[in-house]
Amino acid sequence: MPRAEDLVLVSVDDHIVEPPTLFDNHLPDKWKDYAPKFVRKDDGTDVWVYEGQEIPNIGLNAVAGRPPEEYNIEPTSLDEIRRGCWDVDERVQDMNRNGVLGSMNFPSFVQFAGQLFSRSKDLDMGLNMLRAYNDWHIDEWCGTHPDRLIPLSIPPIWDPQLMADEVRRVSKKGCHAVTFSESPSKLGWPSIFGDHWDPFFAACQDEGMVICLHIGSSSTILAVEEGAPIDIMITLTPLNTMQAATDLVWSPVLRKFPQLQFALSEGGTGWLPYWLERIDYVFEQHKYWTGQDFGDKLPSEVAREHFTFCFISDRVGVDERYKIGLDAITWECDYPHSDSTWPNSPEMLVKQFDGVPDDEVNKMSHLNAMRIFQFDPFSVRPKEKCTVGALRAEVMD
Amino acid sequence: MPRAEDLVLVSVDDHIVEPPTLFDNHLPDKWKDYAPKFVRKDDGTDVWVYEGQEIPNIGLNAVAGRPPEEYNIEPTSLDEIRRGCWDVDERVQDMNRNGVLGSMNFPSFVQFAGQLFSRSKDLDMGLNMLRAYNDWHIDEWCGTHPDRLIPLSIPPIWDPQLMADEVRRVSKKGCHAVTFSESPSKLGWPSIFGDHWDPFFAACQDEGMVICLHIGSSSTILAVEEGAPIDIMITLTPLNTMQAATDLVWSPVLRKFPQLQFALSEGGTGWLPYWLERIDYVFEQHKYWTGQDFGDKLPSEVAREHFTFCFISDRVGVDERYKIGLDAITWECDYPHSDSTWPNSPEMLVKQFDGVPDDEVNKMSHLNAMRIFQFDPFSVRPKEKCTVGALRAEVMD
Repeated sequence: MPRAEDLVLVSVDDHIVEPPTLFDNHLPDKWKDYAPKFVRKDDGTDVWVYEGQEIPNIGLNAVAGRPPEEYNIEPTSLDEIRRGCWDVDERVQDMNRNGVLGSMNFPSFVQFAGQLFSRSKDLDMGLNMLRAYNDWHIDEWCGTHPDRLIPLSIPPIWDPQLMADEVRRVSKKGCHAVTFSESPSKLGWPSIFGDHWDPFFAACQDEGMVICLHIGSSSTILAVEEGAPIDIMITLTPLNTMQAATDLVWSPVLRKFPQLQFALSEGGTGWLPYWLERIDYVFEQHKYWTGQDFGDKLPSEVAREHFTFCFISDRVGVDERYKIGLDAITWECDYPHSDSTWPNSPEMLVKQFDGVPDDEVNKMSHLNAMRIFQFDPFSVRPKEKCTVGALRAEVMD
Repeated sequence: MPRAEDLVLVSVDDHIVEPPTLFDNHLPDKWKDYAPKFVRKDDGTDVWVYEGQEIPNIGLNAVAGRPPEEYNIEPTSLDEIRRGCWDVDERVQDMNRNGVLGSMNFPSFVQFAGQLFSRSKDLDMGLNMLRAYNDWHIDEWCGTHPDRLIPLSIPPIWDPQLMADEVRRVSKKGCHAVTFSESPSKLGWPSIFGDHWDPFFAACQDEGMVICLHIGSSSTILAVEEGAPIDIMITLTPLNTMQAATDLVWSPVLRKFPQLQFALSEGGTGWLPYWLERIDYVFEQHKYWTGQDFGDKLPSEVAREHFTFCFISDRVGVDERYKIGLDAITWECDYPHSDSTWPNSPEMLVKQFDGVPDDEVNKMSHLNAMRIFQFDPFSVRPKEKCTVGALRAEVMD
């Protein structure tokens, strides 16, 4: 078993609860009045207000540090959640407490694919807000700690040409990842089976921008029967990822954009050996009448060329890493959500990595994530200061 | 690699296209007029007519023996499908051609859980028809070849007490399996989260009756986006099984009926190592607030006690057989559907079983199925006449 303190950890999926100051430094004064505002209401709850609409779920599922008995009580104000959820310096301290070197952070109140801004009454102004959001995220949130945080942008999902423009703009600022939806048609946009999204996909391919499809980004959860325990929904969330990956493999997208890269965020890994075998079986058994054609490749090979996977805790995925593709597996912490292993991720991970050679552990724990998202903390921070042990030693408590 | 001709194969999932003579010998004359009738229409298509309703899909997906290029052309009459689909003597010949010793057959035009009869205008008469169906299936279809066919009954799903009565009735006739729905609430009946089905479950537990949940038995397929290739739907069908198993594990059913057995028919096996790990992770991570309690067990242990799994072609499931549970894995042929490996099942299976010890192959290929469904062909037929090689030698072509 590897030693927990020797691990180097880069997490490809954590979450921000956006801070009240988000729009302060990234909009000209004349537009600030139009920006979403953080408001504490008389009842003590915190909300964002945008164009007259209240968005109440500021603390949605931000339960890190709580006793597990209280995971079901939604926090409703910043006072009820860890400061690390929304304060970047405290976030880095919480990463240190968990020995995590690097982290990529998904948005909360603007939704996974930035849908909030697509509902702007004035979409031109919405685009200004979205760019300000990305600038804040890249320059302020990540820019304060470039050796610790991996930038992730959101797309103006209402216009594929604007999406392409924004991809090119943030790419110049050093951001190499963008969110998108598992299933845009479930959000009311065209599906991936036509050519609607081609300008966006083309820009991502050109810029080496990884498209991150987070579970829940279709704003759809699998239908759960009346009276059914909540555990069912929690168990089945990775199925949305399996569906998104299946859609992409059989769609023209991967064949039209052979360099395009997708990250299946919070999708798990243990189902992949089965799924990769299943898509090849479906292909070999049915291609004669469905007309699918991958040239001289199998669909599983195409999938491996285009997808990056990640896991929180998934021994089957580690055991079957050669079938999945050792270079495509990354790890995630999911701070501050209730599925997270924070602050005991290293201790849980060494059990997952029991019996795995060091070079393979390193790929899954950090090297793959660094390569895929062009994240190079070692150029700033000496490698010996990047281990779980070294980072934990930097915090007092 | 085991030799194909040495395998002994018992398939737990194949399909009947019901023959025109179904109701001829199992109803008193006075009721025969009310029975579904097999009618050849002027346009050459065959339909069943029940209470004025036409049920046209007589040949639905019965494509065994066709060139794969034509799998998408639905046969519409008996003339267009193999005689083995509906003629039991020819069925046994087709089993011989594929070296298959035993087979359990699911219904077609009455639907997986016998829903057709639940729509009867007169449910008392519907019950007569359903009993006649079961008598035909047990006494005539299976009874003609008791060493080759495993009986499977359908339930009067509209009344749990009648279901219990029918379970006890067919049990006396030597039938140890009954169909049910993956998700009865999707068929318009109460869900499994209340106590509606308890009389049925109790009878099944008492009688050692295995409840078979076939994919598609919720009459629901996962939503596929407009313009999406059909391959997506084919790839994702096993997800319905994962959902059904998840519902059962977190429901009170398995804890209320500790001996109850379910077969997840056509559900595949390769996803199980992931799923078993996932339900334990969800339990350990969330039990404090969801309140789930399995006594001194983990949910994966409870699942292993109650479920039987099966695969058509699934190397991952074979590789991970210890994690799944070697005694819970069975094999299926899926004759005459388009996912079937007929008539090359033995040749495909030996590749799946490459490197697996003989005693473990025997469990997955036939011993588990024989134990679970109380099927004992060796008492009728000498074991050396049960192998692929021996059975294939009995057919001329």
